Amino acid sequence: MTLSETVHEMKLVSPRMAAAADADKNRALSAIAEALQKRKEEIFAANRQDLAEAAGKGVGEQIVKRLTFDEHKLRACVEGLQQLSALPDPVGRVTLKRRLDDGLVLKRVTSPIGVIGVIFEARPDAMVQIAGLCIKSGNCAILKGGREAEHTNAALFETILQAVTEASLPEKCLLRVSDHAEIDEVLRLDKDVDLIIPRGSNAFVRHIMENTKIPVMGHADGICHIYIDTADEGKVLPIVVDAKTQYPAACNAVETILVKREIAGRILPPLVQALRAAGVSVRGDAETAAIVPVDGDALAGEDYRHEYGDLIIACRIVADVDEAIEHINTYGSHHTDAILTDDDAAAERFFTLVDSAGVYRDCSTRFADGFRYGFGAEVGISTGKIHARGPVGLEGLTVYRYLMEGSGQCVRDYADGTKQFHFADL
Amino acid sequence: MTLSETVHEMKLVSPRMAAAADADKNRALSAIAEALQKRKEEIFAANRQDLAEAAGKGVGEQIVKRLTFDEHKLRACVEGLQQLSALPDPVGRVTLKRRLDDGLVLKRVTSPIGVIGVIFEARPDAMVQIAGLCIKSGNCAILKGGREAEHTNAALFETILQAVTEASLPEKCLLRVSDHAEIDEVLRLDKDVDLIIPRGSNAFVRHIMENTKIPVMGHADGICHIYIDTADEGKVLPIVVDAKTQYPAACNAVETILVKREIAGRILPPLVQALRAAGVSVRGDAETAAIVPVDGDALAGEDYRHEYGDLIIACRIVADVDEAIEHINTYGSHHTDAILTDDDAAAERFFTLVDSAGVYRDCSTRFADGFRYGFGAEVGISTGKIHARGPVGLEGLTVYRYLMEGSGQCVRDYADGTKQFHFADL
Repeated sequence: MTLSETVHEMKLVSPRMAAAADADKNRALSAIAEALQKRKEEIFAANRQDLAEAAGKGVGEQIVKRLTFDEHKLRACVEGLQQLSALPDPVGRVTLKRRLDDGLVLKRVTSPIGVIGVIFEARPDAMVQIAGLCIKSGNCAILKGGREAEHTNAALFETILQAVTEASLPEKCLLRVSDHAEIDEVLRLDKDVDLIIPRGSNAFVRHIMENTKIPVMGHADGICHIYIDTADEGKVLPIVVDAKTQYPAACNAVETILVKREIAGRILPPLVQALRAAGVSVRGDAETAAIVPVDGDALAGEDYRHEYGDLIIACRIVADVDEAIEHINTYGSHHTDAILTDDDAAAERFFTLVDSAGVYRDCSTRFADGFRYGFGAEVGISTGKIHARGPVGLEGLTVYRYLMEGSGQCVRDYADGTKQFHFADL
Repeated sequence: MTLSETVHEMKLVSPRMAAAADADKNRALSAIAEALQKRKEEIFAANRQDLAEAAGKGVGEQIVKRLTFDEHKLRACVEGLQQLSALPDPVGRVTLKRRLDDGLVLKRVTSPIGVIGVIFEARPDAMVQIAGLCIKSGNCAILKGGREAEHTNAALFETILQAVTEASLPEKCLLRVSDHAEIDEVLRLDKDVDLIIPRGSNAFVRHIMENTKIPVMGHADGICHIYIDTADEGKVLPIVVDAKTQYPAACNAVETILVKREIAGRILPPLVQALRAAGVSVRGDAETAAIVPVDGDALAGEDYRHEYGDLIIACRIVADVDEAIEHINTYGSHHTDAILTDDDAAAERFFTLVDSAGVYRDCSTRFADGFRYGFGAEVGISTGKIHARGPVGLEGLTVYRYLMEGSGQCVRDYADGTKQFHFADL
């Protein structure tokens, strides 16, 4: 069977997956958790093979850390599955119930999206998390993990699929593909695949977005800002250092700080000192450079449309919250942006006018994450403007259908005035 | 200023439009209603010009009917605007409020999508409806109406824009474009336009979907089905005749009837007689032809993936509800599909497994419409699987942002175990 035939079969199976009872989905999640523990030695062995191959290629420490699947990661996966299983069923919730007229009742009911293709980085625990989210939300999923985790992913997927099938969910609800040519083929199957969720580098996500007619949910850039409106060192320093250094490669790490002119002379010197002490290189516009030493040439305009993803931060002096908002809406990526302020009016203005998936006051941008939002896990973070924004958990993997029960009603009677609608929400 | 510069300005204005107070938006809607009445002679004169040009080109009766903008249509538009104004503000609703930890509170708040391009048929009242929906939902809109309504649209748009500006909404929140080259340019502005909603022929909508990177919401096909599971003529005949003939060109008109084999011999003869009496040509598979006279060659397989949009209906005999569901999920367009049955178990199975935006029992598919659902109006009907499905009203024109208020929280403390999350929905 060709890949496109397999995916078409998945599409035909998807309404049965959508109709799966919550108890069956939860049984499948428990079965996966059990099977992972039972077969852990086999999975760890596969992971050692991936790690050995990675070492041969001399990959960096961060990648090795993400690639490792050990007792610690296994425990986190098992806990994650248990948490998912404890969450209420996201499918079948009635979000509107309206009588249109006597004997004509409309309901809007949440339902899965259908067939979702998820492409993710070489992090084996992501395979377990994403499969779990798709199962709990009643979606069929095509999973493609990063090449470096190939052996681990194969072992994990086999374990997951067997457990799912034994728990009586449709066998064809999950499919793993392992090379780029297969993903290119999946991207062409716009009749059978309802959504693509790509995770990875900017260039990779952009490539996906430009090469498919299937809707794509995710983000290419994560250009997050912190606007500093207060000279309160105790508030500013720890938050900015956390947002930049806690995990600089993450999409929710801060890239640009905007500092109010009025307080720049007071807050910039201790802030830059703290950033340098944490190993961060500070760049800035000419005005910043006049206050503190900066690295590299003076920044301006389009220079700020840049995601460093590293221990580098850009700084710009702005007049006030309005100029900060304009900068963020112009050069940002609608991901997550924060204001640090003691002024409620400035915060209110920032909350109202910043056009981003996450708008924060007085905390680190790094909180933009499905686990930290209490979603159990996330399948990705969306900077798009439709469907779901920010961290996407179970709710973002559902949509709805309208179900209507009538008793013989025809439109002609309402069009010619014989009958009238009598709307009443029930 | 070039079109792309104008649209970029609209993008920068969109957060201000998003922040517009409900009172201001309602004042704008009332101002439009008033201005339409005040300037009606001017608008009617423009419409007469469009009608004269259309008559010169010898367009059909249906098109003239849609193109006409008279006292009756004006009254409907004014009523529509008043209804919209009376609806609660769809923006700023808090749909999640969760304490993540002491002093760290996350809210999910509904917000407009941003900049929306709507391309619609030559129906001047659509211009008023769509502008009204976009204003009430806080979106900026680029509006392109059908060429045949050019003069009427120009007069309507000028009236609308002046009223909106006087009501203190941003002047740049609405833009009218009038030719296809401009739309082609808008389709390339994926940095500034958040959503395209095309209405019109299959070929046109497909053209749009294939020629832009901007998300597209709408439907190309409307291949709706009625599955007949009961021989009750009193129920079946009026509904099928209504669904086919009340407005055959509509996307929610039925194209295919699926008849349960067991009752086909009883229900088909009177049904086909009723359809023929209403001027409908009936086509069918070989099995249908063995029971009733049909027009044309016997249908099979892919023949059923067809939207007639005319007084033609296709018929197929199926074994049971399961075969009907499989046919609908395979050859349908996920728009609106109905079952006519006395059997609750069959209806339940149909509701559960048909993967369409609308799934109905015992009523006409023609009810799939924003007004009939009580949404006030609709900007279009979506057969996509993400964001909004079925008739799209105010809710479908909104999405959400996550707003978080902290008090100095850093992620490092939660990552290293110093602090724990304490989730509590408020």
